[in-house]
Formats: sequence, structure tokens, C-alpha cells
Amino acid sequence: MMARITMDDVDALARGCAVLGTGGGGDVRTAAIAARRAISAYGEVPLVSLEELDPDALVLPLSGIGAPTVSHEMIAAAEEPVLIRDEVERVFGRPPAAVMSSEIGGANGVAPVAWAARLGLPLLDADAMGRAFPEVQMVSMNVAGIPPTPVVMADAVGNVVTIRPIDGVWSERMARAVCVAAGSSALMADYILTAGELARGAIRGTVRRAIAIGRATQGARDPLAALIAELGAARLITGKLTELERRTTGGFARGTVVIEGTGEDRGRRLTVEIQNENLVAIENDRVRAIVPDLITIVDTLTASAIQTENLRYGQRVTVIAWPCDPLWRTPEGLKIAGPRAFGYDLDHLPVETIAP
Amino acid sequence: MMARITMDDVDALARGCAVLGTGGGGDVRTAAIAARRAISAYGEVPLVSLEELDPDALVLPLSGIGAPTVSHEMIAAAEEPVLIRDEVERVFGRPPAAVMSSEIGGANGVAPVAWAARLGLPLLDADAMGRAFPEVQMVSMNVAGIPPTPVVMADAVGNVVTIRPIDGVWSERMARAVCVAAGSSALMADYILTAGELARGAIRGTVRRAIAIGRATQGARDPLAALIAELGAARLITGKLTELERRTTGGFARGTVVIEGTGEDRGRRLTVEIQNENLVAIENDRVRAIVPDLITIVDTLTASAIQTENLRYGQRVTVIAWPCDPLWRTPEGLKIAGPRAFGYDLDHLPVETIAP
Repeated sequence: MMARITMDDVDALARGCAVLGTGGGGDVRTAAIAARRAISAYGEVPLVSLEELDPDALVLPLSGIGAPTVSHEMIAAAEEPVLIRDEVERVFGRPPAAVMSSEIGGANGVAPVAWAARLGLPLLDADAMGRAFPEVQMVSMNVAGIPPTPVVMADAVGNVVTIRPIDGVWSERMARAVCVAAGSSALMADYILTAGELARGAIRGTVRRAIAIGRATQGARDPLAALIAELGAARLITGKLTELERRTTGGFARGTVVIEGTGEDRGRRLTVEIQNENLVAIENDRVRAIVPDLITIVDTLTASAIQTENLRYGQRVTVIAWPCDPLWRTPEGLKIAGPRAFGYDLDHLPVETIAP
Repeated sequence: MMARITMDDVDALARGCAVLGTGGGGDVRTAAIAARRAISAYGEVPLVSLEELDPDALVLPLSGIGAPTVSHEMIAAAEEPVLIRDEVERVFGRPPAAVMSSEIGGANGVAPVAWAARLGLPLLDADAMGRAFPEVQMVSMNVAGIPPTPVVMADAVGNVVTIRPIDGVWSERMARAVCVAAGSSALMADYILTAGELARGAIRGTVRRAIAIGRATQGARDPLAALIAELGAARLITGKLTELERRTTGGFARGTVVIEGTGEDRGRRLTVEIQNENLVAIENDRVRAIVPDLITIVDTLTASAIQTENLRYGQRVTVIAWPCDPLWRTPEGLKIAGPRAFGYDLDHLPVETIAP
């Protein structure tokens, strides 16, 4: 059993988190640098399971919020976690006992190592998505019917905002407005719950899983095959990135990317639609994979995931897809983060039934 | 001595507040209706001075924030004051003992009667502007160097937001963003202080003064002369409103109005520039009055103040101007709410030296 997150774990974690989410919360490599620096300054971070915490212990789910193309530049100023910790202590009357990733996918899966190190707290081996989603109400606690309130935010200049929204959608609306006013980047804590309350709201084991995904490709002879095996993923297409359209609107990075098949996939053409994350993969008007299942574009040679903002014309890529956590396929899960939550008039079809 | 605000006082207060501010926080008549309803439901509101409160008693300065053209429609949903009171009790560990107007000018001078009645609290005979200003950092506590933190906001659907800004300008920026997200209208408490702390930060006696201004014109044979005498104001021009340009941008109502003289003022032409409030009056490129001194456009016949949103082509009006509270003429006061704080490259010139 791994009791602490070491420098070496950070690299594997960053690789794994990049596979689990390609949009949200800043650049994964920048987050990894911040995590390594924080470990160097404050020591390795204990990794604990929910069962190892006292049921009354307060857990602090943290995530960066903002358009990735902006927060790329601004991640991990040192004092935001401290400001949030202090405000939580004021609001709840006691300090948090552990930090948790709100989303394991992307930079938000890696940066909590830095935030936990800065606060001298352990990191919980769990998150609230099992992947990445672009909106703050798309979390497992919301699926479990737990209200997000209060939401605590801090920005780089030192402003602290506490929101008591009436529901998850207002939480997103208010948090996004504060984020934009703060220069489109802020650190956020929501669903601040006890370990006991989190037992019915967290997705467990996802930090260890992200590290395992990262390790699977390190030093493998065929990294792509190793990654696909580790994830139990379907390969949707291998080819070349031939069309790319991106824009930042309403605090989100949106876009469309087209991959044209090469080699055994020659003559095929796959379109992926993006809102921070890859949401749907379509071939010949047929859905090949769709949110909340995971779709990731990886470098065909190295199997490294390519973040939305790093997509470029001409890249040699493979698109893979695999099942989300079963929680997201429940009726409530699909209501919160299924195709219709993103404006698609489409039902969710499990990737394992349509991708091959 | 008047110990309670009665139904009859509300009418005079509304007339007086309309003279003291023509933009901010919604429609004065709507606020007066809300105040009368609340008195009817919850009883008359005790009016207390700072000295009558225990020095440790918490005072709750309340104001509506939003573009007047929007909040006109939305003022005074019943539960916002209760949501703010509850949050203040959570944050400070004790409930407020009195309500205070953040700005005595406009609807924000009248609505606190409704809010105090709803909460069963007395109203403090003081405010933080002695008039109305369009931005939340333009308050006497800011001039006194007191930080605004925390700022507590509530909206009509029930969301509650607490902001701990690093300074007054960030307070305005964050509060404005939350306000816009809430549909451009919210109730706000800032500078929540004890009566003892407020002793160096509040402008005293302004509720009674607003009532006196309102009473001066009620039943007067020459209301305009009575108003001018009560205020010690200068008459800048009497004439007809001939040009009017208004727009709502960035949460503010901005515009320009031109009055052409009639009668003894025939041949003269006065331009008034507006950001919620009337900021500067110019005649032949010469400043006749400028913020923070007060400039109000009144109906020539009745001496009723005309709110920015009710200005219309063809109205027969008189523009009057008079000195602001001495606080606003100090270097710190001018820095916060002088001409340059509104983007004018002009020095403040006391109205009594330039208007006649």
C-alpha cells in the first residue's frame, strides 16, 4: 500500500490525470511542477482512504475553476488554499482534516497534491467525477442529492467569496460569475462534507487509479496498447488531425476536431465535439461514444493524452473511449452530466455497445 | 423627538430621498409602497441614533444593488433581509441590533424602513453617503479607512453570497458580478460594524434630514423655493428638457441630458452627465456643479425630484445643486468619489463658489 505521494508518483499521476480529462483547470504539466515544488517545500503528501478518516473529519474538495486557456498561465499561486482553509474554519468552526480532488481528470487531479502539501493535510483517495467535467454541478455529490452549499472561492489577489446557492445550477452560475470577475481563474471548495457524509457521495480510489494509468504507459514497449488494456478502452480511430476549430466563450473552451484515419483506418473520418472535455465522437452521423463515457485523444506513438488547448493540425493521434463510473449511467447521473445536460438531443448509449 | 417612523413619515422620507439621489437602487415610489406594507404587517420602525445603541451592538447597512432600470421591477422580495440577517448571525456569531441605510439617496434611503420592519429591528438615523453614489466603495466607511469585509448579498431566488474583498474596489467588482449573475438585482450588506466602530464611519442624522426635506415641500405655496431654502441650494437653470440620451452598460444607467432655459433663463443651455446619479452640470464648457456635490433635476412646479429613469423630453424642470457632506471634500473623500473617480479629468470646485 502506498501511504504517501512521492515526487515519482506525481509524474505518473499527471500522465493518468491527463488521460482522464483533457480540458479543465489548467495545464497538467504546470500542476505537476506545482505539486513537485510543494512536496519539496512541505514534504510528501499522505494518501488516505475514506475509512482511514474519522467519520466527523471535514474533507475539503478543491478544484481550479476557469477557462483552461486562461488558467494555464495562472495556476497555483501559493495562498489560495490557505485563504479557503481559513474561511472554512470560520464557517464550520473547525479546520478541514483532508483535501480531496473535485475532479481527478486534468490539472485538477494533480494540483490537489500541491494544495494538500501547502496545508499540511493528507489527500483523500477519491474524487467527485472519476473523470473531468466542465461544470461545477457535475459531481457525484450532486447525483447523491447532497447540496453544494457553501461554496468557498479564493483568487490570486486574495479575495475570498462564500456562496450559499439554492441548488447546483445556481452554484455553477454564481461561481462562474465570481471566477470571471477574478480574472477567469479561481480556486474553489464546494461540497465541504464530513468523511461520513462523503461515504455516499464520493467516487473512491481514483487517485490510485490515475497513478496506475500513468504507470501503465511508462516504459511500455507499446504504450498505446498498454493504455488501452489498462483502461479497458475501445480504439475509435487512429489517424491525423485535419480540422480544428476552437473558441473561448462564457468561460469555456469549445470546439470541434476532425481526425481522418490512416493505415488500417484509411478512408474513415471521426468528429469530436468539445466543451473543455471531449463530449461526443461521431462517425458518418453515428455516435461512436458520448458523454458521460470518456473520450480521449492521445498521441499514437507515446499514448500521452493531448489536452484540448494543445490540439494542433497534423498531429498523429488515436481516439480512445471507455465507460464512465456506473454512477453517471444512473438516471440522476445522466440528468446531471448526460448528453442532454450539454444540449445534445441524444440518449446516452454505453460506449461498450457502440464503439467497436 | 420622533421615536418611530410612521406611515406618514414614509411619504416625506420618499420625497426627501428622491431629492438626495436620482439613480440608485430602484424606484422610490415602489420602495415607499414596500415600506408602508411592511409597517402595516410588522409595525412602525423605531428610529435610533448611534448614541442610543450599545457600542458593541452590530449594525447592518443594507442597500439594493443593480441597474435601476432593472431593479425597478424587482425591488423588495420579502426574504432577502432574512437571508442576510441569518448569514450575518452565522458569520459574526450574533444577530444585528439595527438596520442602516447604506445610501440615503433614492430608493435605498426608503427601502431600509421595509427591511428593518421585516426584521423587527430599529433603523439607525445615519447613512454612509449623505446622498447616493453609483458604486459600492463610495461610502463614508471607506473614506474612514475601514475595510468593507465581509460583504453579504442575497437575491430574489434565495442565493446568499459572502465576499471578503481585499479592498473597496474589489468589493465593487465582485459584488457587481454577483449582482449581474443574480439577474442584475440583489440586496447587499457591507461594512457590518458595531455602533462603536461606526462612530467614525457613518454620516449622522440623514434619515431625519431626508424626512425634513420631504416635509419642506409638502403643502408649501412655492414648493421649489421651499426646497431650495431647505437645502441651501443654488438654482442652476429653469427650463425644458430638450435632449436625452440614456443607456444601461456594465450594470449602470449612463446618459446625458440637456436643459434649455425658459423665462429669465432663456438662451441658456445646461448639460448634465449621468452615471445612475447626476455627476456634472456644464454650461458653455464651464462646470457649474460637480460630484461629490449634489445635482438634482426637479419638476419646476411641484419641486418633486425626477429620477434618472423617469426623465422625458419636454419636461419643465429646474436643476438645483448644493454642497455634499464635508467628508466628501476631504482629500480621501475626493479620491473615492470625486470627479476623477468617475473618469473626469477635472478638479472638484465647491458648488457654492461656482454655481451662482
